[in-house]
Amino acid sequence: MAEQLPEKYADLLDNKKAFANLGTLNRDGSPQVTPVWVDYDGKHVRVNSARGRQKDKNIARDPRVSLSIQDPENPYRYLEIRGKVVEATEKGADDHINSLAKKYLGKDVYPFRQPGEKRVIYKIEPHKFSAMG
Amino acid sequence: MAEQLPEKYADLLDNKKAFANLGTLNRDGSPQVTPVWVDYDGKHVRVNSARGRQKDKNIARDPRVSLSIQDPENPYRYLEIRGKVVEATEKGADDHINSLAKKYLGKDVYPFRQPGEKRVIYKIEPHKFSAMG
Repeated sequence: MAEQLPEKYADLLDNKKAFANLGTLNRDGSPQVTPVWVDYDGKHVRVNSARGRQKDKNIARDPRVSLSIQDPENPYRYLEIRGKVVEATEKGADDHINSLAKKYLGKDVYPFRQPGEKRVIYKIEPHKFSAMG
Repeated sequence: MAEQLPEKYADLLDNKKAFANLGTLNRDGSPQVTPVWVDYDGKHVRVNSARGRQKDKNIARDPRVSLSIQDPENPYRYLEIRGKVVEATEKGADDHINSLAKKYLGKDVYPFRQPGEKRVIYKIEPHKFSAMG
């Protein structure tokens, strides 16, 4: 069941440059955790990666994910979001990574692009929020 | 196979107040990710929690974990550690949480203790390090 982001923690996904640590599942079922940029479209939590990366392969195999987001101003205030990737699409993914570059780096264009990479947006339907602080 | 922490990233576990985001596995195999304090005893990566918490239950069921550690001075420099909890013990766990309180808060005694809680050290044998930056 999809849940709404609690208003009290909306700042962590909105205006603050808070990283998410995204947990996915490897082929053998073990966890993988890596830091990612993140935003919220009013319904889905969104992250962005590229085709062929470990995260991308993991999500294609098993869409269950968890995100831990700490307040950069107070690491003892954080939100865990559990949910499922309901869509992984290249459509709009270049614009999306540019908007994340604007949010996190103040740059209009994502500066870390690799030659030939295909960006992907992962839209996560949140099922459970756990907050601290 | 146990691996040694790369010298170049030792600072992330040593003197810096870098949080780890610890990924464990829930009963249904989905990932859980939460921020934790962390240190390194020269062989094992160590975290500390309390009996009965979700992390504690998850690790007892399946010891496979992943930790993502970002440099607090540069979030684009980070280390992912995959491994297995090879020991979960209450022995020395009170001293250990106090030493983590010293590292992260500059306090001699851990100030967030809950009445009746039993602290636990989780010793993680690292199997794979992936670094960025």
